[in-house]
Amino acid sequence: MSKAIILVMDGLGDLPDAKGYTPLSAALKPNMDRLAEEGATGLFSAIGEGVVPGSDTSHLNIFGYCHEKYYPGRGPLEALGAGFSLKEGDIAFRANFATVENGKIIDRRAGRIPTEEAKAFAKHVQKLRVGTGIDAIFQPTVEHRGILVLRGKKLSPGITPTDPHSTGALPKSVPLDPKDRDAKRTAEALNKFTKMAMQKLEKAKENKPRRKPVNAIIARGAGTYVKIPSLYDRFGVRGACIAGGALYRGVASYVGMDVVNVNGATGTFETDLKAKGKAAIQALWSHDFVFVHVKATDSFSHDGNFDGKKNMIAKVDKEMVPILLRGNCHIIITGDHSTPVKRKAHSGDPCPLLAWGPDVRRDGSTKFDEFSCAKGGLGHLHGTELFHTMLNLIGKGQMVGT
Amino acid sequence: MSKAIILVMDGLGDLPDAKGYTPLSAALKPNMDRLAEEGATGLFSAIGEGVVPGSDTSHLNIFGYCHEKYYPGRGPLEALGAGFSLKEGDIAFRANFATVENGKIIDRRAGRIPTEEAKAFAKHVQKLRVGTGIDAIFQPTVEHRGILVLRGKKLSPGITPTDPHSTGALPKSVPLDPKDRDAKRTAEALNKFTKMAMQKLEKAKENKPRRKPVNAIIARGAGTYVKIPSLYDRFGVRGACIAGGALYRGVASYVGMDVVNVNGATGTFETDLKAKGKAAIQALWSHDFVFVHVKATDSFSHDGNFDGKKNMIAKVDKEMVPILLRGNCHIIITGDHSTPVKRKAHSGDPCPLLAWGPDVRRDGSTKFDEFSCAKGGLGHLHGTELFHTMLNLIGKGQMVGT
Repeated sequence: MSKAIILVMDGLGDLPDAKGYTPLSAALKPNMDRLAEEGATGLFSAIGEGVVPGSDTSHLNIFGYCHEKYYPGRGPLEALGAGFSLKEGDIAFRANFATVENGKIIDRRAGRIPTEEAKAFAKHVQKLRVGTGIDAIFQPTVEHRGILVLRGKKLSPGITPTDPHSTGALPKSVPLDPKDRDAKRTAEALNKFTKMAMQKLEKAKENKPRRKPVNAIIARGAGTYVKIPSLYDRFGVRGACIAGGALYRGVASYVGMDVVNVNGATGTFETDLKAKGKAAIQALWSHDFVFVHVKATDSFSHDGNFDGKKNMIAKVDKEMVPILLRGNCHIIITGDHSTPVKRKAHSGDPCPLLAWGPDVRRDGSTKFDEFSCAKGGLGHLHGTELFHTMLNLIGKGQMVGT
Repeated sequence: MSKAIILVMDGLGDLPDAKGYTPLSAALKPNMDRLAEEGATGLFSAIGEGVVPGSDTSHLNIFGYCHEKYYPGRGPLEALGAGFSLKEGDIAFRANFATVENGKIIDRRAGRIPTEEAKAFAKHVQKLRVGTGIDAIFQPTVEHRGILVLRGKKLSPGITPTDPHSTGALPKSVPLDPKDRDAKRTAEALNKFTKMAMQKLEKAKENKPRRKPVNAIIARGAGTYVKIPSLYDRFGVRGACIAGGALYRGVASYVGMDVVNVNGATGTFETDLKAKGKAAIQALWSHDFVFVHVKATDSFSHDGNFDGKKNMIAKVDKEMVPILLRGNCHIIITGDHSTPVKRKAHSGDPCPLLAWGPDVRRDGSTKFDEFSCAKGGLGHLHGTELFHTMLNLIGKGQMVGT
């Protein structure tokens, strides 16, 4: 019992509907309710009370890394998640293939081109020299998405993005601080890349049959990659990550966790929950804790689909939780943030939290939902406190003083 | 429902009397109790657990401004509240007309002279040159009170006050750090002002008919005025302030809120609660949130008047809360600090807190008082967390990360 599984259902927390129900409170979830009854509940805020967590910063905190100290920006985390081999000092971006007409972005996703087609286009812009000693390296990922990395000396992420997050004028990148020379150099390199990529993509033979050309790459989420002390360095524990989404795999790999590949783990409603559960049990053999991520709860929230979210929770309860119980280990269940279906966006409301296992002090909880968790004996955990609570459960809590 | 009203009853929190009642728990307040039943409760500590908040620092935190970063001292806040047009770098003080005899203060309030009489005396000391390039500007406010501002270059608030907060010797101001040249210069200017003001007031014809002359001005609460980023700059929201007391208006205006004038808002038991409620509803049209302040609860506490405080709470419940409900918005009710009637002073006990509206997770609370709030689902909010919780309720929570 000296091990733990942390199950994160993305965007789990919600707000009451007109009848006072949340997807979690309305879901049929006898297994989770039993764990609450046998264990303890509480609330979890990955950043602070009322503050809206991003998906990247929240997971850093879940893994024990305070975002204020360790957040490198979204780009490097996505790059790591895509398996990009980053070097220290690289500036990484999330990038999109887009369609530009007369200098204006008319489609930020170039018609959501299929992954295979995107790969063909990517060959034209794989590696370009975009400044003295600066290379731009592009790697496609899923559909229109990809990773852009600027590699060279004296680069800075202090620049504006070339992806305006909407259609309209294609913006040039500029330094956030006009006096920042490194940022100026980086913005110039990014603008050079934009220009060269457009020239190369315009000429690409793959565009001939297309009505809407794939003729630009726009970038956002700049961040510098720096190696940080691993989970093992800091806490003496080894963790494994089981997640379909690239970002979660990226954060895990950034903090030195092992990322496990699971066939059928897609990050959608159809994801193979049983396969993920089994992989978690297997990973427990060689790790102190295993993080399991379920994405679809958040996707349903963003779509405003109450029943979809409710059913996904029920499915996790039925198909995954019984398998996790075979791990004979402590189990923690929570969300990284709330995504209320009525808001279709992340919110600052705390997430329900549940801890189960022999070293959990029972608190008389009877259910696992937003309302009963607010009165649970675990109280309200913030930031990295959840991770420290997990460490303590498995007997690896850090001593301060002697 | 994307707006909110924050109702602060000053000094609301209290301690149990011999029978175990607090003014809030003993008050007849069916409306607030219903809001608790339909919403959620908790506790609020404006500074920290057990720490005694000042009225200035607590309101800064209520508006989302951590006092450790943004507190400018009491003087500038009072000056802003009095409508004094401060310039950056001004050193502002709270000042009193006083009566001095043989170099000793015999009355710190010069017999609490009426406002109109004070205005006449103030004309003699409106603006004095008190050092090279340093002006002292005095503006009377209510009764014996006023604002003193030292304006000039290289001034510092690091000096001792000339108001000893008791009768006895009239102190000279000295720099807190003897090596601080700017503070030395400022203390000298203040001492020069004290001397010049005494000379001018002694000669004032208004003193002829008086047995107890108004012959000195003593100052305290030195602080430098610096412009800070507004609520709109920081959070993208517009707030309005409805308060009778100058200090609350000053803090609100310091953070860039609009201060609304309400006829009959006096800050006393007789204050026109209905007029304040109606003004709040009106201000909601053009603002994201409205702060409504009720002072008399605190005044009764300072007088040790249990029934007065209890009756004031009942009056707010009966006369103001029903009007606030017409705003069709989220409602938060709390205090800035506790002022137990048995102590007649601020204390570090947390304040009861209540949140109501469609996006509040009901927590099964049935009453609004110190005892039931301690078990409420909102938990215990500290410092700026209350403001962030309000922002999140109205869908304006800030995202950290992406």
